[in-house]
Amino acid sequence: MAASVAVENLNPKVLKCEYAVRGEIVIHAQRLQQQLQTQPGSLPFDEILYCNIGNPQSLGQQPVTFFREVLAICDHPSLLEKEETKSLFSPDAISRAKQILATIPGRATGAYSHSQGIKGLRDAIATGIASRDGFPANADDIFLTDGASPGVHMMMQLLIRNEKDGILCPIPQYPLYSASIALHGGALVPYYLNESTGWGLEISDLKKQLEDARSKGIDVRALVVINPGNPTGQVLSEDNQYGVVKFCKSEGLVLLADEVYQENIYVDNKKFNSFKKIARSMGYGEDDLPLVSFQSVSKGYYGECGKRGGYMEITGFSAPVREQIYKLASVNLCSNITGQILASLVMNPPKTGDESYASYKAEKDGILQSLARRAKALEDAFNNLEGFTCNKAEGAMYVFPQILLPQKAIEAAKAAKKAPDAFYALRLLDSTGIVVVPGSGFGQVPGTWHIRCTILPQEDKIPAVITNLKKFHQAFMAEYRD
Amino acid sequence: MAASVAVENLNPKVLKCEYAVRGEIVIHAQRLQQQLQTQPGSLPFDEILYCNIGNPQSLGQQPVTFFREVLAICDHPSLLEKEETKSLFSPDAISRAKQILATIPGRATGAYSHSQGIKGLRDAIATGIASRDGFPANADDIFLTDGASPGVHMMMQLLIRNEKDGILCPIPQYPLYSASIALHGGALVPYYLNESTGWGLEISDLKKQLEDARSKGIDVRALVVINPGNPTGQVLSEDNQYGVVKFCKSEGLVLLADEVYQENIYVDNKKFNSFKKIARSMGYGEDDLPLVSFQSVSKGYYGECGKRGGYMEITGFSAPVREQIYKLASVNLCSNITGQILASLVMNPPKTGDESYASYKAEKDGILQSLARRAKALEDAFNNLEGFTCNKAEGAMYVFPQILLPQKAIEAAKAAKKAPDAFYALRLLDSTGIVVVPGSGFGQVPGTWHIRCTILPQEDKIPAVITNLKKFHQAFMAEYRD
Repeated sequence: MAASVAVENLNPKVLKCEYAVRGEIVIHAQRLQQQLQTQPGSLPFDEILYCNIGNPQSLGQQPVTFFREVLAICDHPSLLEKEETKSLFSPDAISRAKQILATIPGRATGAYSHSQGIKGLRDAIATGIASRDGFPANADDIFLTDGASPGVHMMMQLLIRNEKDGILCPIPQYPLYSASIALHGGALVPYYLNESTGWGLEISDLKKQLEDARSKGIDVRALVVINPGNPTGQVLSEDNQYGVVKFCKSEGLVLLADEVYQENIYVDNKKFNSFKKIARSMGYGEDDLPLVSFQSVSKGYYGECGKRGGYMEITGFSAPVREQIYKLASVNLCSNITGQILASLVMNPPKTGDESYASYKAEKDGILQSLARRAKALEDAFNNLEGFTCNKAEGAMYVFPQILLPQKAIEAAKAAKKAPDAFYALRLLDSTGIVVVPGSGFGQVPGTWHIRCTILPQEDKIPAVITNLKKFHQAFMAEYRD
Repeated sequence: MAASVAVENLNPKVLKCEYAVRGEIVIHAQRLQQQLQTQPGSLPFDEILYCNIGNPQSLGQQPVTFFREVLAICDHPSLLEKEETKSLFSPDAISRAKQILATIPGRATGAYSHSQGIKGLRDAIATGIASRDGFPANADDIFLTDGASPGVHMMMQLLIRNEKDGILCPIPQYPLYSASIALHGGALVPYYLNESTGWGLEISDLKKQLEDARSKGIDVRALVVINPGNPTGQVLSEDNQYGVVKFCKSEGLVLLADEVYQENIYVDNKKFNSFKKIARSMGYGEDDLPLVSFQSVSKGYYGECGKRGGYMEITGFSAPVREQIYKLASVNLCSNITGQILASLVMNPPKTGDESYASYKAEKDGILQSLARRAKALEDAFNNLEGFTCNKAEGAMYVFPQILLPQKAIEAAKAAKKAPDAFYALRLLDSTGIVVVPGSGFGQVPGTWHIRCTILPQEDKIPAVITNLKKFHQAFMAEYRD
């Protein structure tokens, strides 16, 4: 190999960055999957079940028909000139596609758009936000993105100057945040979610960690809150959100609100409230709080991960700062138009009276009710395994149980040069084909061990998943019980 | 506004970054466009003609039918179950969509894919590259991306450690490179294309600039070559390419080959050769040269900018370095699937014998022949204007004429606090609605002034563009002639 480029002379920030949800265990799983193809029957299972990432359609979830009808017509607008189209597509999908195409100059879905996204689509999203929150939203505040991740990177790039700039992040956290902070050379300032109170977010801990960081010379720029939580699945109470907003306001922090699971709530006593709604209902206006809300088409009941669509709603930044955000967006020209259209659809789905409404509603409710049943089944299953405790999965797409590993297993992991939970996850994969992510990939209280498992295997597969988990765990404990 | 975030405390690398193709002039054009909508007739023109960016479909270019048929079916695979589909779509589009869906596990176009992109699509791209070059290509070397820009950012992020790491870039250059180097905090090491030899790339200048940078303590990591050139439009000769490859090999540089205009060549005596083909035909293998080739669905005859698809072909990097590239790709999960599918289609279009071949060929040839005529017409028009000289647009999508501005105009620009070519471009916009980008946005030999104008207005509009240009220029010269 050419000597000019070697790991030793790459950007050390890249080397430092870790991304467990696509890390070692997933790469091992891909190898096993190839082995299953080339040597069927050579492993103790027939398929790899990817529970490492919130990727619903990879596990069989079907896309919402209305959304896909609109996308297909927008991809090939000359369908609108053909008579047969009327019998292939629902009338409201046809009229919605026409309406969307009319907002795109020249109906050109193959053209770069405005760097923030097509204005007409941002209008639809702003209307959707306003009707969700009961407070106005402005299309000029919307930046359409290729999913939430590029938006998060953009904000980190904007805010982080050097290793003395800190971002308060929950622990456990979705590793996008730690990866992005590492790539931009900043400091992750952790605050711990309290597992014993259902992954509670305690303002007192936020304050303590902030002061601690400041005492070390860290300039804390922003607070990340993931609500509903990933990997933890909790849904914040309104009171808790008030506290967060007050804290950001009084400490002069940007609030980065990861709200991509806003449609994924599985318990009756909790409800999603956007941080913008909370801030506005406290009487805080634009001048009080710089706030970014991230949304994605990858999650919710739609689960359209492959379309890479999403947006950031940005409020409370001065015009010169917004210009810099616009410039960053413009360096990548624009996000993909299919994703832009889909983002407008999920924020403005069919309404009562629309021809597709009944079937749309049935698809949506079917998916969300099934996810709620699956969350409960997996939560119960983990709670029934020796050494496991699992908090309620109130929202999002994961269970994140804690496992009390026997000392012997910890020693075996040490000998294998693995974190104990990574050791457990690898053994689970080798025995069952189930891919989960060890808690060490998300951060956890030192000395505790967890795994994150999505609730996404299709419902008819859940009993087998639970049986296999149980069988594996019993054998594992038989081998390692102290 | 909240005081916590201000321009003064943002990442200085972001502040430093400039991106002229979406900069001041474009923002001014957007304002004028709004004025035309709200107060029709209030400006001396009826429409804004965006010649600032290679965005063919925004100016009326129609997408290739076959590509869009395949995309529509992949977006809504249940179309394949309906009888009417057979009369709405061509048979080979249907079979191609089936073939693509079969390579996607569960036909799930809404699932995140492998971080490098769907394997079956990478196979098709590798086959396309091999048939283009006559040398083998490997699907494992392909990283599908949301257009070429994210790929370029990824490589800059990988290679640049600090301001002492340099990247050799052509001047004039497409400002993605200067923007990306600024954002990652490296040093742009310029080499000048020679305008008097048709924007020739001179190896002697490369050497001189490299040595000069090294003498200043810059560790030069890579050489960027844009072929066909942007904004300059030249197509490199084979001999010139041999020289570039030898230079990179002997100096230990990564060759970053921007080959997004590989289909856009308008002269008979030039032909596109990928740098990989050149290197392999010189007998250089993987071990001799780390090489990245960038391709995009945004350019060519397809011009599908809004789909954000493209790929990097990466050869000559060691396994541990490739792992780091993979990790960077995985932090953004994957590129959008629609763009992935389209990238596979442009590298594997209909072939002789396919039902769509004749109409596909007619669309492709029609677009490319028309682009060639438009390039020639604009080149001639600029050469006929007082003070302008314009090199041949051999390829890409632009003319980049030099303008000898009268001293009086330069003084007026100074008084208006504008670069002289930006002053000219703003005056052109205000008089005609034509949006071009000043040469200062791309870099130019100090004291020379240029504008970049795309050749993309539809052919029936070209005469009016030329008339308006001429009228404006005559008035401008009448005002400022020394």
